[in-house]
Amino acid sequence: MKNIFFNAHHSPAGAFATFTLGYPDASGGFGIELGKPADHDVYVGLESVDGSAFELLPFFDDHNAGRERERYEVDAATHADTSSTAEGHLASDFIPDDSEPWITGFDHEQIRRDFQVGSDTWSAGDLTFTIHTSMPAIPDPDTASVDALRLPLLPAVAVEVTVDNRGCDRARRALFGFRGSDPYCGMRNIVGPNQIRGVGQGRRVAIMSADVDVRPGLGFQLADILRPKHPEDLDFGLGICGALTFDVPAGVVRTVRFAVCFYRDGIATSGLDGRYYYTRLFRDIEEVGAYALDHFDELTLASREADAVIDNSNLSDDQRFMLAHAIHSYYGNTQLLDVDGRPVWVVNEGEYRMMNTFDLTVDQLFFEMKLNPWCVKNVLDLYVERYSYRDQVAFPGEDSLHPGGLSFTHDMGVANVFSRPGYSSYERPGLHGCFSYMTHEQLVNWVCTAGCYLAQTGDWSWYRKQESVFRDCLQSLLNRDHPDANHRNGLMGLDSSRTRGGTEITTYDSLDASLGQARNNVYMATKTWACYLALEAVFEHAGEVGLAQTSSEQAERCAQSIVASADVDGRLPALIGEGNTAGIISAIEGLVMPYYMGLSDCISPTGRFGALVRAMSRHLRAVLMPGVCLFPDGGWKLSSTSDNSWLSKIYLCQFVAREILGIDGADITRNADAAHVAWLVDQKCGYHAWSDQMVAGHALGSRYYPRGVTAILWLDEGSRESKQEARAKTFVYHRNRNRKAKPVAAQPAA
Amino acid sequence: MKNIFFNAHHSPAGAFATFTLGYPDASGGFGIELGKPADHDVYVGLESVDGSAFELLPFFDDHNAGRERERYEVDAATHADTSSTAEGHLASDFIPDDSEPWITGFDHEQIRRDFQVGSDTWSAGDLTFTIHTSMPAIPDPDTASVDALRLPLLPAVAVEVTVDNRGCDRARRALFGFRGSDPYCGMRNIVGPNQIRGVGQGRRVAIMSADVDVRPGLGFQLADILRPKHPEDLDFGLGICGALTFDVPAGVVRTVRFAVCFYRDGIATSGLDGRYYYTRLFRDIEEVGAYALDHFDELTLASREADAVIDNSNLSDDQRFMLAHAIHSYYGNTQLLDVDGRPVWVVNEGEYRMMNTFDLTVDQLFFEMKLNPWCVKNVLDLYVERYSYRDQVAFPGEDSLHPGGLSFTHDMGVANVFSRPGYSSYERPGLHGCFSYMTHEQLVNWVCTAGCYLAQTGDWSWYRKQESVFRDCLQSLLNRDHPDANHRNGLMGLDSSRTRGGTEITTYDSLDASLGQARNNVYMATKTWACYLALEAVFEHAGEVGLAQTSSEQAERCAQSIVASADVDGRLPALIGEGNTAGIISAIEGLVMPYYMGLSDCISPTGRFGALVRAMSRHLRAVLMPGVCLFPDGGWKLSSTSDNSWLSKIYLCQFVAREILGIDGADITRNADAAHVAWLVDQKCGYHAWSDQMVAGHALGSRYYPRGVTAILWLDEGSRESKQEARAKTFVYHRNRNRKAKPVAAQPAA
Repeated sequence: MKNIFFNAHHSPAGAFATFTLGYPDASGGFGIELGKPADHDVYVGLESVDGSAFELLPFFDDHNAGRERERYEVDAATHADTSSTAEGHLASDFIPDDSEPWITGFDHEQIRRDFQVGSDTWSAGDLTFTIHTSMPAIPDPDTASVDALRLPLLPAVAVEVTVDNRGCDRARRALFGFRGSDPYCGMRNIVGPNQIRGVGQGRRVAIMSADVDVRPGLGFQLADILRPKHPEDLDFGLGICGALTFDVPAGVVRTVRFAVCFYRDGIATSGLDGRYYYTRLFRDIEEVGAYALDHFDELTLASREADAVIDNSNLSDDQRFMLAHAIHSYYGNTQLLDVDGRPVWVVNEGEYRMMNTFDLTVDQLFFEMKLNPWCVKNVLDLYVERYSYRDQVAFPGEDSLHPGGLSFTHDMGVANVFSRPGYSSYERPGLHGCFSYMTHEQLVNWVCTAGCYLAQTGDWSWYRKQESVFRDCLQSLLNRDHPDANHRNGLMGLDSSRTRGGTEITTYDSLDASLGQARNNVYMATKTWACYLALEAVFEHAGEVGLAQTSSEQAERCAQSIVASADVDGRLPALIGEGNTAGIISAIEGLVMPYYMGLSDCISPTGRFGALVRAMSRHLRAVLMPGVCLFPDGGWKLSSTSDNSWLSKIYLCQFVAREILGIDGADITRNADAAHVAWLVDQKCGYHAWSDQMVAGHALGSRYYPRGVTAILWLDEGSRESKQEARAKTFVYHRNRNRKAKPVAAQPAA
Repeated sequence: MKNIFFNAHHSPAGAFATFTLGYPDASGGFGIELGKPADHDVYVGLESVDGSAFELLPFFDDHNAGRERERYEVDAATHADTSSTAEGHLASDFIPDDSEPWITGFDHEQIRRDFQVGSDTWSAGDLTFTIHTSMPAIPDPDTASVDALRLPLLPAVAVEVTVDNRGCDRARRALFGFRGSDPYCGMRNIVGPNQIRGVGQGRRVAIMSADVDVRPGLGFQLADILRPKHPEDLDFGLGICGALTFDVPAGVVRTVRFAVCFYRDGIATSGLDGRYYYTRLFRDIEEVGAYALDHFDELTLASREADAVIDNSNLSDDQRFMLAHAIHSYYGNTQLLDVDGRPVWVVNEGEYRMMNTFDLTVDQLFFEMKLNPWCVKNVLDLYVERYSYRDQVAFPGEDSLHPGGLSFTHDMGVANVFSRPGYSSYERPGLHGCFSYMTHEQLVNWVCTAGCYLAQTGDWSWYRKQESVFRDCLQSLLNRDHPDANHRNGLMGLDSSRTRGGTEITTYDSLDASLGQARNNVYMATKTWACYLALEAVFEHAGEVGLAQTSSEQAERCAQSIVASADVDGRLPALIGEGNTAGIISAIEGLVMPYYMGLSDCISPTGRFGALVRAMSRHLRAVLMPGVCLFPDGGWKLSSTSDNSWLSKIYLCQFVAREILGIDGADITRNADAAHVAWLVDQKCGYHAWSDQMVAGHALGSRYYPRGVTAILWLDEGSRESKQEARAKTFVYHRNRNRKAKPVAAQPAA
């Protein structure tokens, strides 16, 4: 049995908000803009059949109860023996009672969870608790009407609580509530128009319902709300717990609808002054709740439709779980801002909260292209406008500088602070490891992301706006290979002057040099090859014959360099020509790009780059071995020399292995996936929802993270023919492009 | 030597914001809307003469350093032995270094503090650090211009850092910075126009300077900012520490000016939608900083003027200290809101954050009347409009209800949540102690506060608006005495129906019944007497002869009841006629009101209520004895039966004892004040800045509290003649009143 008590995000789109739930104790709750769970007590429960107790799902901490009142009742707190006060009765009214034995948790064994991408359903005894989210496609705010934006950008999550009281001859009370943690504002009851009732904290988070007879209540502890001595006690403003309760008559099944709502008022970011886009659509959290409850059917329908996307796939149970889990975490990190009327799309980086980290953008690309291609363009544009820079480059160990060129920053800021133009929050000079510059990686990422965007949307009007950027990117890539065209090998050979004597790193910043060093890295090489292919295709379409030709030649040089580096067993060294012979799975990563740009011939073992594709197959087979790139449990180890392996990249490489290289089997799928699932739901790691950096199977970094949506690629796997057909429909670029010159990246292979 | 390491607020007016500093370790910092110190590391320091170290004031915690980077460098963190990673150099760049031995704290013995109401100056070695605040009078926003409001409502505090480098032949670096704790937003550097440089967190708090060559920097730890390897490292956006540094050339003295700024955007409160009034005056925190630095001279002048107010007084050092400390804490709790264009004045209740708690308002009255009388009116009006109610009343132990009347709630909400109309956040039915209703207390508080406001301002146009409220208050008081006029004794005899069988309490909610029970309480009795005097005087002025007469008679009945309750030793029982013979100092509290309403005859031992005044003197002399109402250390014990004694009330009663009852001596002043100071600066209690509830000398409740400004009364003590003269000038009401009928509350005694 898989452990079901892991946290998952349940999030609207673009609100950087989450109802996180699933890990035991006060480990979930209602978070806005946090890099971790809010650690609220979340109360979901039902009175027992005999009325003697309340049984709750295990998402609260008994030890939190009862302490609050001590701050007010100084005498009572200091006189445990009440007889020592003169009159006794005053102090004894409120001797703190830490434990209410009639508030208990359901036995874990009694609890079932059905975790899907849209719905997450907990059931125990006669109680069922479902959180509904979906995978909304957000219309481009620049062209969509306000009405069309309200539902997809609604900062709320739908929740249903069902009580089956058919087996009971008395009414039973059920509850849904929480204990907040906002440092600035108190808890409150909400009594709105249209019968809306709610509990919330300040103006930021709230649970609301419009169902009849749902009662809001506040108290120092949950017990005060469930069994108030007087109805007025429910309005106790000093309460730090809030819950909505309702009664279910004997013999009936009742479902009550709740909206979990979020609202962050005012200007939320600095550097660029951004407010949440939803603040244009809803005046305050009450309006959010009213809209959500008024459109509840649409929300639950969207949840079911999301479930169906994965239900109708050919994925295994393990795959379904990981894809769903990753999508939950992705939405929790999304943030749509309004900066002086302009929409700005941000994906925050999980526990680190860096904004639009570019090496995540390039991986989340495949997910966003399916739902919100305009978000991809939005990010690319802001990178050009504000987060691009020009540098010089140097050979390792040399001081003399050569022309460099255009590149892009690692990120756009951190934790709602946009960094200054031309600089990320992350990169620093003089380093060889973590926090060094990722100049080449982000240059490649811009081109690959832009190439996919163009290929799949055919948005050539955008290309024309960014034409010079594409040209500058090519020149920058060339300069980073070798200042002398005759010595170019397609690989990155020089480091940015911004490193000030350091060395550039890759996205794998916390790994050793096998994946961490950018220069001559075979992971970077394959992505660079893909990048040249993108430029070739784009320039070709644009009639830039010379630039297309240059790009084509560089792609071929790069492929040759990679192929030539293989050892006698077919293994490619992590660092080409640098003596680092670690084996890295990520060598194959870049193959995904031509696939999604529709450049099928380029990834065919018999096509234009057949030698490279075959080299990749041989390499992967060589390293995907126990003790090399497989952990003892069957999980994938991205580098043979590091225990730090990243799930998002594993997902991507699994796709490449199966769909492009045709390598499948237990290692690729069943054994590995079982191990990966075990990592995620591990009793320690499960707190962090979906996490990326797994050190020997333990989530130690990149936790609470959005990047796992690379698993969306799995949905595109299948029989080659049907997939080709699907792609032919999807890949607008490929369909529309006006082919010229030589047929690089030509027809999809039959 | 007094312990100098206690926290004090340093706050602008009306921003609910504080730069709290003074307690060792990470115990102070920049708080907005908090009920406790922000617990930031605050960095204030100077390079040592030999350049080998940086010496800091002790307001940071060494253990906070260095942990942050581990979250990013997973491999480094998991491989303490770097040789176990393949390439070594990547991980070893950033092995966390928890301790930077060259960052040290000054020896505590080296540090001096000059704590005043305006300036708080720390000096150690060649470093001097001064925080400037003042006691701004805020013009009434309804009539003042925006320009007149900017300076008094500026949400910023001025700080000067002076380095005396005359004894050193090299340049030395100094610093001022912090490590923030906002859960939502990251730290940032600020590079503004006009040479402004700053470090801040999100858009809420920032330190800014416009002095030349002041450099902002961010880092995982302070060391990274003080000695960056590369200048660019100072822009490391992931830094959780921020500091401004500047260099002082050899041989010179340099003072650098800083503005500590606060800003809370958007709607801040719920229940009533309020935004900070200053958001009408300043667009964002950058604008606040620019204005503060542009008006720095005015800010430091205001600080010096505030200092002079106390310097020029006759207070003892202990008194000066407590008054200054209390004023600091008061401003930190003030909040001026804009609710749909209407100014709403709120004083938050320290650690509890209840809003405009009425039993605090009535004590803070004396302070506010000197500076901002319109604030008093503002609070009274909102109590009438939104936080008044009508009840019925019952005799103890009886179910049958009698007519009650108008009263007011205990508070207006808590922690930025305005409670619903007619209800406080605090009061609950069915109780006999803490959290019960304070119906009678708050009724008395409204009348006393309104009476003082009228007496001192002569604002009879306001009276005319609230005329019916005054009438209803009188009727309500009568009904709470006895339903049958023939049985009235001037005391509270019935409890509110809102208690639902419970009993009303007083502001002394956490004490035993000697002060906690309202009915028949001698503390409440004296205040009720004062309340009738206020009504008598007000109605008399208004020509309401009958009502004045009724009020007069009730005052006399009340006085007689009190006087008659004395035992053979002259001691008044805490509860008149209820067998509780505890001795309470607070019996004398109510005498302050006629004093400040200019009703001098009423508080003369030879005047109209001479018997009462003399009874009070005898009572106080009887209880102010070791083992009764004096703690062993000489501190005042408000009730003989409780160890919980409240400093704000002690201050007030000290004033009454000396100035009205003419009782002075070591017990009243020197011994007692020394004890009270020791309580406040106690090594444990000092964390909470000024605190009210002292249990046997330890601050266990009402910490971080605004109420201590009752000490402002001390400034009005002095020779009787000069004071009478001063009052004759101050008490506009008394001067202007159109005397009619019998001369109740007549001329000031000669």
